[in-house]
Amino acid sequence: MVLVRPRNPLNIGAAARAMSNFGFGTLRLVTPWEPSYLDARSAVGASQVLLDAQVFGSVAEAVADCGLVVGSTAAANRELHHALYTLEEGAERIGHQLAKAPVALLFGSEKTGLSNEELAHCHWLVRIPTRDEHHSMNLGQAVAVCLYELVRSASQPLKVAGYGIGAPAAAEDVERITQLLFESLGASGYVQPSSEGTTLEKLRRMMRRMHLNEDDAELWLGMLRKMLWKLKH
Amino acid sequence: MVLVRPRNPLNIGAAARAMSNFGFGTLRLVTPWEPSYLDARSAVGASQVLLDAQVFGSVAEAVADCGLVVGSTAAANRELHHALYTLEEGAERIGHQLAKAPVALLFGSEKTGLSNEELAHCHWLVRIPTRDEHHSMNLGQAVAVCLYELVRSASQPLKVAGYGIGAPAAAEDVERITQLLFESLGASGYVQPSSEGTTLEKLRRMMRRMHLNEDDAELWLGMLRKMLWKLKH
Repeated sequence: MVLVRPRNPLNIGAAARAMSNFGFGTLRLVTPWEPSYLDARSAVGASQVLLDAQVFGSVAEAVADCGLVVGSTAAANRELHHALYTLEEGAERIGHQLAKAPVALLFGSEKTGLSNEELAHCHWLVRIPTRDEHHSMNLGQAVAVCLYELVRSASQPLKVAGYGIGAPAAAEDVERITQLLFESLGASGYVQPSSEGTTLEKLRRMMRRMHLNEDDAELWLGMLRKMLWKLKH
Repeated sequence: MVLVRPRNPLNIGAAARAMSNFGFGTLRLVTPWEPSYLDARSAVGASQVLLDAQVFGSVAEAVADCGLVVGSTAAANRELHHALYTLEEGAERIGHQLAKAPVALLFGSEKTGLSNEELAHCHWLVRIPTRDEHHSMNLGQAVAVCLYELVRSASQPLKVAGYGIGAPAAAEDVERITQLLFESLGASGYVQPSSEGTTLEKLRRMMRRMHLNEDDAELWLGMLRKMLWKLKH
C-alpha cells in the first residue's frame, strides 16, 4: 500500500488501521506532509503497521520492487491513458499477481488524487463504484473499501455460528404449540365456533411459516402452557 | 442506516459522506452525543445526508417502519444469540428484502458496539471479515465497507429465496407483539420479577427470528390482545 503525498494525519492513521484490520503489513508513504506523518505516528493507538511504515522521496522509489503497480482513482469521466477496472475486477487481477510478485496499490493526496506523473508509474487503475454526483471518497474509507475487496476476493466463506440457526423444531413440537395456541385462543373467546376448523388450519400454516428451531419451540411450549393454565383458572 | 450512540463527530461526518458516495439517503441517529452531532453538522462540507439526518431516543423508534433490522458486529467469538452472516452473504439478503420493505443497518458506538438490548432489535447480524487479532474497525470505515458491499451486491443477480410469503412486518408491529406477549406472560405468572429484563430481551430476539410477514403480524396482534384481555379479567 502506497500513500502518495497524504496530508491529514487522521487519514494516514485510518489507512494504517484498515491495513491492520484486513491483514496487510507493508505501508509506504511518498513525501507525506511531515507534521502530519509525525502526528499520525505519535497518536494514541497508532498501529504497528504505521510504526513500521517507510518513507520514500518518489513514487518510482516506493514501487521499485513491485511487479504490478495499480492506481486508485475516483474519476469517472477524466481522460485516462490507462485501462480502468472496477474494484471488483481489479481485486481479482491483483490476487492473481500477488502469487507471483509484490503488488503496489497507490492512493493519491486527499485534494488532488494522483497526478499524471504519478499515474504514469501504474500498470492500470481501479475505481470504487461511487456515484457520479459525489465520487470523491475520504482517503481512509477508500483504503478500507479497497482492502476489504482484496480480502473478500481471496476469502473462504465464514462458518456461520449462533443460535437461531440451530436445528429445526420437530414437527410434533410445532403441532403441540399450534394446539396449545388454539386452546388458549379458545379459552380467550377468540375462536368462533362456526370457524373453528379454518382457524386451526390458519394457525397451523402460520406456525410452520415461522421455521422455529428447537430452542424456540421449547420456549413457546413453556409460555403457552403457562398462559393456558392461567386462562383456565 | 442507523448509528447508535455515536460519539465522534468525524465518524458521524464520515458515515454520512460514505452514504452520499454510494447513494444512500436516510441517516438516523440514536441518542448521539449532542456536542458531537452538532459539530458534525456544522463542519465544512457536511453532506446533505447529514443535514437531513433524524435523531431518535431509542433503537425501537429508529427502526419502527423497517421490515428488516440488521446489526453489525466486529465480534468473532462473542457468544451470540443471533444468526451471523458474512457481509457478503448479508448484503445479498438485504438486497432481496429491500425490494419489499425498508431495511435498517445498525452500527453501535465506537467504544462498545451494540449492547445486548440494542442487538435484541435485530433479526440477524453481519460481520466484516477483519482479522481476529485486530477486528475492531473505525466506525466511518466500517460504514463505507458495508455500503460498498451493498452497492456491489446490487449489481449481482440475487440468489437467496425469500423467507416467507408477502412483505415483512414493520419493526414497530413486531415490537408491539413482543410487548403484548410479555404482558400476557406477566399476567400468567411466567415472568419472574428478578429476570424481567432478560426475559424481554429473549422474547424480542425470538420474535425477530420468526420473520413475520404483515398478515402474520396482524394475526398475532389480534390473538395476543384477546388473550391479554382475558388474562386480565
